[in-house]
Amino acid sequence: MDAAQEARNREAFRQAVVNTLERRLFYVPSFKIYRGVAGLYDYGPPGCAVKSNVLAFWRQHFVLEENMLEVDCPCVTPEVVLKASGHVDKFTDLMVKDEKTGTCYRADHLLKDFCKEKLERDPNITAEKAAEFRHVLAVLDDLSAEELGAKIKDYGITAPDTKNPLSAPYPFNLMFQTSIGPSGLSRGYMRPETAQGIFVNFKDLYYYNGNKLPFAAAQIGQAFRNEISPRQGLLRVREFTLAEIEHFVDPEDKSHPKFSEVSNLEFLMFPREDQVSGLSARRIHIGEAVSEGIVNNETLGYFIGRVYLFLTHLGIDKERLRFRQHLANEMAHYATDCWDAEIECSYGWIECVGIADRSAYDLRAHTEKSGVPLVAAERFSEPREVEKLVIAPVKKELGLAFKGNQKMVTEALESMGEKEAMEMKATLESKGEAEFHVCTLEKVVTIKKSMVTILKEKKKEHQRVFTPSVIEPSFGIGRIIYCLYEHSFYTRSSKGGDEQLNVFRFPPLVAPIKCTVFPLVQNQQYEEVAKRIAKSLTATGISYKIDITGTSIGKRYARTDELGVPLAITVDSTSSVTLRERDSKQQIRVNVEEVASVVKDVTDGFSTWADMLWKYPTHSSSASED
Amino acid sequence: MDAAQEARNREAFRQAVVNTLERRLFYVPSFKIYRGVAGLYDYGPPGCAVKSNVLAFWRQHFVLEENMLEVDCPCVTPEVVLKASGHVDKFTDLMVKDEKTGTCYRADHLLKDFCKEKLERDPNITAEKAAEFRHVLAVLDDLSAEELGAKIKDYGITAPDTKNPLSAPYPFNLMFQTSIGPSGLSRGYMRPETAQGIFVNFKDLYYYNGNKLPFAAAQIGQAFRNEISPRQGLLRVREFTLAEIEHFVDPEDKSHPKFSEVSNLEFLMFPREDQVSGLSARRIHIGEAVSEGIVNNETLGYFIGRVYLFLTHLGIDKERLRFRQHLANEMAHYATDCWDAEIECSYGWIECVGIADRSAYDLRAHTEKSGVPLVAAERFSEPREVEKLVIAPVKKELGLAFKGNQKMVTEALESMGEKEAMEMKATLESKGEAEFHVCTLEKVVTIKKSMVTILKEKKKEHQRVFTPSVIEPSFGIGRIIYCLYEHSFYTRSSKGGDEQLNVFRFPPLVAPIKCTVFPLVQNQQYEEVAKRIAKSLTATGISYKIDITGTSIGKRYARTDELGVPLAITVDSTSSVTLRERDSKQQIRVNVEEVASVVKDVTDGFSTWADMLWKYPTHSSSASED
Repeated sequence: MDAAQEARNREAFRQAVVNTLERRLFYVPSFKIYRGVAGLYDYGPPGCAVKSNVLAFWRQHFVLEENMLEVDCPCVTPEVVLKASGHVDKFTDLMVKDEKTGTCYRADHLLKDFCKEKLERDPNITAEKAAEFRHVLAVLDDLSAEELGAKIKDYGITAPDTKNPLSAPYPFNLMFQTSIGPSGLSRGYMRPETAQGIFVNFKDLYYYNGNKLPFAAAQIGQAFRNEISPRQGLLRVREFTLAEIEHFVDPEDKSHPKFSEVSNLEFLMFPREDQVSGLSARRIHIGEAVSEGIVNNETLGYFIGRVYLFLTHLGIDKERLRFRQHLANEMAHYATDCWDAEIECSYGWIECVGIADRSAYDLRAHTEKSGVPLVAAERFSEPREVEKLVIAPVKKELGLAFKGNQKMVTEALESMGEKEAMEMKATLESKGEAEFHVCTLEKVVTIKKSMVTILKEKKKEHQRVFTPSVIEPSFGIGRIIYCLYEHSFYTRSSKGGDEQLNVFRFPPLVAPIKCTVFPLVQNQQYEEVAKRIAKSLTATGISYKIDITGTSIGKRYARTDELGVPLAITVDSTSSVTLRERDSKQQIRVNVEEVASVVKDVTDGFSTWADMLWKYPTHSSSASED
Repeated sequence: MDAAQEARNREAFRQAVVNTLERRLFYVPSFKIYRGVAGLYDYGPPGCAVKSNVLAFWRQHFVLEENMLEVDCPCVTPEVVLKASGHVDKFTDLMVKDEKTGTCYRADHLLKDFCKEKLERDPNITAEKAAEFRHVLAVLDDLSAEELGAKIKDYGITAPDTKNPLSAPYPFNLMFQTSIGPSGLSRGYMRPETAQGIFVNFKDLYYYNGNKLPFAAAQIGQAFRNEISPRQGLLRVREFTLAEIEHFVDPEDKSHPKFSEVSNLEFLMFPREDQVSGLSARRIHIGEAVSEGIVNNETLGYFIGRVYLFLTHLGIDKERLRFRQHLANEMAHYATDCWDAEIECSYGWIECVGIADRSAYDLRAHTEKSGVPLVAAERFSEPREVEKLVIAPVKKELGLAFKGNQKMVTEALESMGEKEAMEMKATLESKGEAEFHVCTLEKVVTIKKSMVTILKEKKKEHQRVFTPSVIEPSFGIGRIIYCLYEHSFYTRSSKGGDEQLNVFRFPPLVAPIKCTVFPLVQNQQYEEVAKRIAKSLTATGISYKIDITGTSIGKRYARTDELGVPLAITVDSTSSVTLRERDSKQQIRVNVEEVASVVKDVTDGFSTWADMLWKYPTHSSSASED
């Protein structure tokens, strides 16, 4: 099959999935009656149930299993926090404008579309040109505004809708901006990630954990990105649910006590070197990946393993899941190592979980900006001799010079790092005074030699104070769910062969509804049995849907197969019922009194369907599919 | 006890609760290291666990029990939606500004504080003046901007911090405003409630429900209000979690099939008439309240009963919970009836759940604004003869007159209500043409007689098409949780009597952690047993906290009583352990292998602690409190 045909098949498959999802209200474009807003989607009843099942399993698999500290912080965030984190300055995409209409486009998207179009549709393209376009696609994410602008100009790319000329690319900040309080003076943003809420609480959380490392905090919540031109449906949206873990460790000890529980797992990994050498992802033992140094440390490896277990439990196909290491140029300068769990779907390989060792970057940034030390301490069993920086501000002199600001200047002096302090010492000794930027005052002041003593002392220390490293697994819940939809979807012929029926093969854990209840025919006796069963299902905590329409049983099965409901109870007598499994379409007979507990056993995973086939008589002709 | 002493006691009690809550990280002011933002709070680990327990129970008690359609819509909302709902124009508070510094205040707060201060602290106040201040306090919510401004002027109220003069009151919109997309032209807001997301999806949800009424949709999510000057801690915040139900019914039939399940409940109700007559809330059977017409209809009554059960199950004291009916002037003009579940705490009676019959207002507003009919239909068993309005636009004439706008003019004509249409008919007949406002065009056009035929026809109808009424229970989750904290908090003396110890008597359903595991002394054997127990607790799905510090067992009990943990396991042998209940401090001995299932039985509510006292030997001296 050639590439073009493959692309068409992928597109057709995606259309089938998306049509089913929208028709059955797994999701719909938000505010549809007002023609919608690009990049905003509602989860309808089955989608909402899938999402809450995924989140409940996430809590069980990560938070409860690891005793993580879960927190819940607001979405509205004051500017200072996102200034410290770097988002105010750097959370941007490059944008170009139609010079006549003002319509905005993402610069890299236009260039990408142009190159792809040329490669796929231009039969006269030279081998040289083709290689060039492929190179552009490969380095797209690394291009600067100038380089992008130059390419757009070179290739004569114009606005897609009007063919008007385009502006030069310029950065557009992706945060939704707002104003906090009535004055209009206090700028805020809707958080672009949940992580910052955890970082600013580090001190309290460390204390809550008995001042011990390592520990992890977790947060599930909405995040917001004002995308320039959202596309790819649920994969690139303007508001989404993130589930993030910040695991704080001693940078000198990134071992993990439970690593042995995952070390034997083997799955597709795609190390940096293999990508650079043009190889494909390959199956690697995570234990070996850590011991061979492919993965930087045990804790990072532990989370990669746990993420693998999480995703495959949900029903993600393990052959279409890989862990790809960031290339050197993809990683933030402070990151030690970073792996993305990528899931293959009709849009290609999609980053769904990022697992990064962010070193001490975030805690340091907030320490610096807030002046509150976000640090941990290791107590020594016996004191050690160390050379220690001593900064002794002379309060009287500082008070005379800075009056009301004395406290802030003093604090800023005391929180200088070793390098900065030694430079100041040198300047004070050579020039008698030094310029000094006080963050909290947002200005530069002049420090005189008489105002501070800086020296290095040999000291006995009882503890080592350090900024912890953080290892961050960050889950894009909507992306995971969308990929799960694609991996779970299949079609099969109706009994007559005249129709293609859609099925989602969700595991019971994920299925939006665990079972349906169908009286075979419309009569009062059967409906009463159905209601009795419904009541016992509610009491057992099982979500169900009851369908008392007179529609043929085959049609009713087909309708709920399309919602991914794993089990269907057909009431075809007053004493026992037919229980039918979605994928095999096998049927067993179960007593009315027993059926709720059988459903619970299978959907909670205590028994398999195969167990039930052994235990109960199979097939009842009355409820066969037609 | 006089009023002032009572106020001091309430204040002292609140301080004790709030100190405990903040110290144990139930909640903390958000962004504390940056000095926080008024009205924004983080839930720390125990608060976050309490919140997710409350929400899980809400889902069980409402969504699962009633088979509601849960949806999940974005917070970012385009202006058109909130224009239709009335929020853009009317969701305001009256604000005054310090004329010199520009500091903003809520006008009613200043007037309220002034009157209260006078009543409580001015010994020379005349009886006449006192009566006037009390009257102002009573009607505070009804005062217009002019009336508020006049009172502020009369009383000479100035800015609290500076004593500067104040501006006249003017409305300030409480929505956080933002801009959607890169153009800056598309205004949006952070939703002030979750309900609108449900209303705009009515058509799809009705279809999903098989085009049948009644049905309910539900949504849990964040909502935002940019309060002018937040106070009262967790009770008045700028971002909060709402859980809302929109129950759609036929306006001609508001009976509820399950009303009999709640009709015998009796609890404190405070009908409108009793409030006006100066009476107090009294115990009323909800069944009688409905049959006597105190509560407008069965469905409203059903939800009042279900809310009562929900809140008391969580641990809200039923003696400090009342359902207060809105006075005529409190209700929106379209509402049929409205009851607030109010919970008494140290701040007074606080509205925590609103249960309103909002009639057809919301669906009509969106029908009008969007042009998409949000209606339901009742099929008649046999056709009925009705007089029916027929509006027949003459497309050719309209096309000639309005060209590209023809479609919108046609749609607007067709969607006229009976009154508007008959007025147009009269005008067309008398004057030959009529002015007509087309919403979607945002302008007035001239309609000529030749462009439309309007008449009333006798017709056989097979169905009745109508806009459903909506009954809306809306839960302020944060407020419920705060009141629950106050209702659950008590102190008791330590064994030595030298200390007051804090306890939260949370029911297991709500408790942030279900049990603790304490090795009595630090030794490897006990720690291994503790780990074995911990593993079995995780497998059973029970959240626990393990504390292997050498702290005295009494201190460890006290620490977790303060978190409201209902059960504590003390490992004091390798075969059996001591299990201690929080409030009674009673202890039983249980085998190591059994203890997880005993904890599960008690915390899941399958058995009571009293059952366990019968079943297991009581007290073990080794783990007694000291």
